[in-house]
Amino acid sequence: MGILVRILIGSKSDYETCYPIVDYLLEFGIESDFHVSSAHRNPERTAELIRDAESDGIKVIIACAGMAAHLPGVIASLTSLPVIGVPLKGSSLSGEDALFSMVQMPPGVPVATVAINGIKNSAILAAQILALTDPSIMERVKLFKKDLANS
Amino acid sequence: MGILVRILIGSKSDYETCYPIVDYLLEFGIESDFHVSSAHRNPERTAELIRDAESDGIKVIIACAGMAAHLPGVIASLTSLPVIGVPLKGSSLSGEDALFSMVQMPPGVPVATVAINGIKNSAILAAQILALTDPSIMERVKLFKKDLANS
Amino acid sequence: MGILVRILIGSKSDYETCYPIVDYLLEFGIESDFHVSSAHRNPERTAELIRDAESDGIKVIIACAGMAAHLPGVIASLTSLPVIGVPLKGSSLSGEDALFSMVQMPPGVPVATVAINGIKNSAILAAQILALTDPSIMERVKLFKKDLANS
Amino acid sequence: MGILVRILIGSKSDYETCYPIVDYLLEFGIESDFHVSSAHRNPERTAELIRDAESDGIKVIIACAGMAAHLPGVIASLTSLPVIGVPLKGSSLSGEDALFSMVQMPPGVPVATVAINGIKNSAILAAQILALTDPSIMERVKLFKKDLANS
Amino acid sequence: MGILVRILIGSKSDYETCYPIVDYLLEFGIESDFHVSSAHRNPERTAELIRDAESDGIKVIIACAGMAAHLPGVIASLTSLPVIGVPLKGSSLSGEDALFSMVQMPPGVPVATVAINGIKNSAILAAQILALTDPSIMERVKLFKKDLANS
Amino acid sequence: MGILVRILIGSKSDYETCYPIVDYLLEFGIESDFHVSSAHRNPERTAELIRDAESDGIKVIIACAGMAAHLPGVIASLTSLPVIGVPLKGSSLSGEDALFSMVQMPPGVPVATVAINGIKNSAILAAQILALTDPSIMERVKLFKKDLANS
Amino acid sequence: MGILVRILIGSKSDYETCYPIVDYLLEFGIESDFHVSSAHRNPERTAELIRDAESDGIKVIIACAGMAAHLPGVIASLTSLPVIGVPLKGSSLSGEDALFSMVQMPPGVPVATVAINGIKNSAILAAQILALTDPSIMERVKLFKKDLANS
Amino acid sequence: MGILVRILIGSKSDYETCYPIVDYLLEFGIESDFHVSSAHRNPERTAELIRDAESDGIKVIIACAGMAAHLPGVIASLTSLPVIGVPLKGSSLSGEDALFSMVQMPPGVPVATVAINGIKNSAILAAQILALTDPSIMERVKLFKKDLANS
Repeated sequence: MGILVRILIGSKSDYETCYPIVDYLLEFGIESDFHVSSAHRNPERTAELIRDAESDGIKVIIACAGMAAHLPGVIASLTSLPVIGVPLKGSSLSGEDALFSMVQMPPGVPVATVAINGIKNSAILAAQILALTDPSIMERVKLFKKDLANS
Repeated sequence: MGILVRILIGSKSDYETCYPIVDYLLEFGIESDFHVSSAHRNPERTAELIRDAESDGIKVIIACAGMAAHLPGVIASLTSLPVIGVPLKGSSLSGEDALFSMVQMPPGVPVATVAINGIKNSAILAAQILALTDPSIMERVKLFKKDLANS
Repeated sequence: MGILVRILIGSKSDYETCYPIVDYLLEFGIESDFHVSSAHRNPERTAELIRDAESDGIKVIIACAGMAAHLPGVIASLTSLPVIGVPLKGSSLSGEDALFSMVQMPPGVPVATVAINGIKNSAILAAQILALTDPSIMERVKLFKKDLANS
Repeated sequence: MGILVRILIGSKSDYETCYPIVDYLLEFGIESDFHVSSAHRNPERTAELIRDAESDGIKVIIACAGMAAHLPGVIASLTSLPVIGVPLKGSSLSGEDALFSMVQMPPGVPVATVAINGIKNSAILAAQILALTDPSIMERVKLFKKDLANS
Repeated sequence: MGILVRILIGSKSDYETCYPIVDYLLEFGIESDFHVSSAHRNPERTAELIRDAESDGIKVIIACAGMAAHLPGVIASLTSLPVIGVPLKGSSLSGEDALFSMVQMPPGVPVATVAINGIKNSAILAAQILALTDPSIMERVKLFKKDLANS
Repeated sequence: MGILVRILIGSKSDYETCYPIVDYLLEFGIESDFHVSSAHRNPERTAELIRDAESDGIKVIIACAGMAAHLPGVIASLTSLPVIGVPLKGSSLSGEDALFSMVQMPPGVPVATVAINGIKNSAILAAQILALTDPSIMERVKLFKKDLANS
Repeated sequence: MGILVRILIGSKSDYETCYPIVDYLLEFGIESDFHVSSAHRNPERTAELIRDAESDGIKVIIACAGMAAHLPGVIASLTSLPVIGVPLKGSSLSGEDALFSMVQMPPGVPVATVAINGIKNSAILAAQILALTDPSIMERVKLFKKDLANS
Repeated sequence: MGILVRILIGSKSDYETCYPIVDYLLEFGIESDFHVSSAHRNPERTAELIRDAESDGIKVIIACAGMAAHLPGVIASLTSLPVIGVPLKGSSLSGEDALFSMVQMPPGVPVATVAINGIKNSAILAAQILALTDPSIMERVKLFKKDLANS
């Protein structure tokens, strides 16, 4: 199927927390690429990564950010693809700042926000979305749900 | 295409706030059905509505709730489809309670949460997801983005 | 008297925090059973445990959960028995999310909420409720109050 | 059966908000008495009302309070009966202060806390507790649950 | 002058945090006594300690408490003496619960609240109050202010 | 006795909310003067009012402020007299900002903080403090407590 | 001097709240231009307005935004000029969301944040900054300070 | 150019957190001096340091403070120079108290507030302001922005 999900984090320091998304997606048979590119420190490169996304075959974008956490919102302003946002905990305000900055998007530009540090759920949500376009992913999502019940 | 989105609210009192989702979806050419069914007061009927969703051809579920706001989480536990949650403001805590209850879902069962009272964004997010499966919706999403820039 | 209290937690990781409820109840001469069953990951099994509760002779249910913390609310929607909820601390938001998700239940479906990580108080509250039906438990509750004053 | 529930509020200004508890209880066939007696302004009278409760045949106490909202906690310190607390909204902090003051009780002295302004749920919780001691109340609780589903 | 300040804490576990108040007071030449007596677990003994305060020559009461933190409010309801409250940090909510429970007292019964864990400031405030009645304490307060500026 | 309490507010717009303190104090037979003088807009005049306070015979200072609410803290830095602070509600953050700014004073410079908009309690606290120096005020405080119980 | 300040708001609905900044600046003899351009709905035009700012002679940028409030942060990522941010109140969370989104910028890209709805202070801060480059503005700032003290 | 920035902290205990501002400024070729002087414990010396600032050639003031965090506001009341405030985390409330106390300044007296513990951003903001008066600083700011993008 090629790479279907593009993951962005704004800071190298979030790498270890966020890289597992790649593996969670693979459990659903979904390939992804992973980029460190800040909305604030490197706006041009971030914009490029998003503007190229559709032509690269990307279907869903996942963006993780802490503090002011503008990354997913900035991305959402630049693409028609669904954008999933993961607010990160690493701040004095324990991620409440990142949560508010991410979820409280103005009308017109939604970010599908999951829990603070909700790394795993961002992958599952991406899989649920992609399952609508691919029966093999849907099958794996259904299997995952069954395993969840038995775990 | 038939009805692609199922919308649920937990209480009749949220009808006026939430019914416009139906119209927002229609702007993207998406049909939906709309149900009042509480996760707490009528768990059986809610479960039925969700369990039938896939065979009814539903692709995305939108659930709106205030206060403890369990509705989208309960729905997410019963389906493999993507679930969008809209926390509603109508409580002493101005929707902060509904936001926390909705977004802080445990690993395994994501809810794609939008802003407090983010009715319009729930429809746009649903359209962005469905656009992945239907080029005519994608076209309308792209048009919407352009109009947004010109508004 | 048989088992009078059913305790549920949503995740194995909360076992050590919550299992002492069993012992606290025993101090009042009350037997309980203890289950790990998530409202979200295993809704069917959770529903079964609650639907069987009354015929099993259960009189009070205690449910402990963190983050979105829907467990006690979901349980309360399925039973006529009193449900005591314990919001757990283990999240980025220190249990404030769990507290709001648990206590802010809509009209019709109450959860008797105690303090964040209020394990011990959930047992005492259960004992106070059961004391209304059993003079030997009432005697132990009164003794407990006296000891409290002397401690 | 006589009067089974004693309701206390700390301030006359909360009368209109809280008096409907009496009627909600009557729907379950439960009689109650209702007192205005502040924990802070009239501690002696409050203590008396609670100390007499058991000999008066009272089984459950409901206390409503705003702001620092000590009333249910103070009551819980004086009785072995279960105490239900309703945090009231009427303050600059929208009842978050009352909620914290009520629910965060220390180990040993629980207050069964319901939602901010959760007047109706305090009555239902009392009915669920009293249903354990009286089959006619249990029947009405079960009927109430069914009506809830059909409403 | 005899003992002028009575210090109360609700739980032995706060002893180490709070006992230094005694020494801070001594720096202003003020003697105090120190008691562990919970408002909730031992209401009678607490009431006694407060009712005897005036005849014991006590002029100011300092009460420290965490979580629901009713101790200073309960004390203030039982005495005409000024009551200083210190909200303690030791809870899931980092003392915000104790702060709200202490400072948001209803009209008629004030608690002079200082910072979360503001042990030292409770002693200084007591000294400032007692300085109005005793020139030697006033002298020490003024010296303290000067030293503060030079520190 | 002359004027014993100096009241300061930072902004004319708080006049109506705060002026009743003068009358509350008079109920205890305490005279006061009342000044509008901002810590930020008029720091020199504020400093003068405080530096003259002791020689003017003032014994207690009450300062009311909203938003950043530095007034009582700035005053406390300039005097040895006890300073009572009243956080005011009039801001987007409903007085939570003013409460934090006032109560969280650093070690060395306490502000005796009362509830948000706790105008009446600031007067009662001042009376309780002054009662230590004047038996006629003490008598009135005791009467006030009794009336409170009967109200 | 030409136009020295560029003001941006993200939504027409904030026009009435924010336009007075133009007049406040004029009181310091500073000319400004005022644009409605959303960071999310019209990212290209916003970027253009900022990239042209320096060549247009702009020295300071003021950006006002509510909810997720990314506007000033996005601007700060695109310019070397100082950016002043005004969080706006108009949301369910009373501007606390906008405040966190604005002030919690990551290292490297500061936003000089003023109070929620702090329209006037944004103009004064701009004047204080521009006063460093122009003695006539400095004179007016000093006059303003004096008037403040006399008001 | 001489010393252009004066940095103040209120307490020695914040020295290690805040002293790096001096080095961050040096990276932009800006010299600064650094003082420990509390707004509350040493108001006179603080006032002197600020009143002398302009004649000392200072152009920008940076003030860091925790808890009630009045330092930058008090400074802003005494000078016409722009004041940058850094709320510090070191309190029970994780710096939310300091943030509110700093950013919520009343109309007339702005503090340019950066993130909690936003030490580095305070230096960058100062550099951006000073760059308006000095092309060599502007060059370094532009270089810094470029490096940021490449980092």
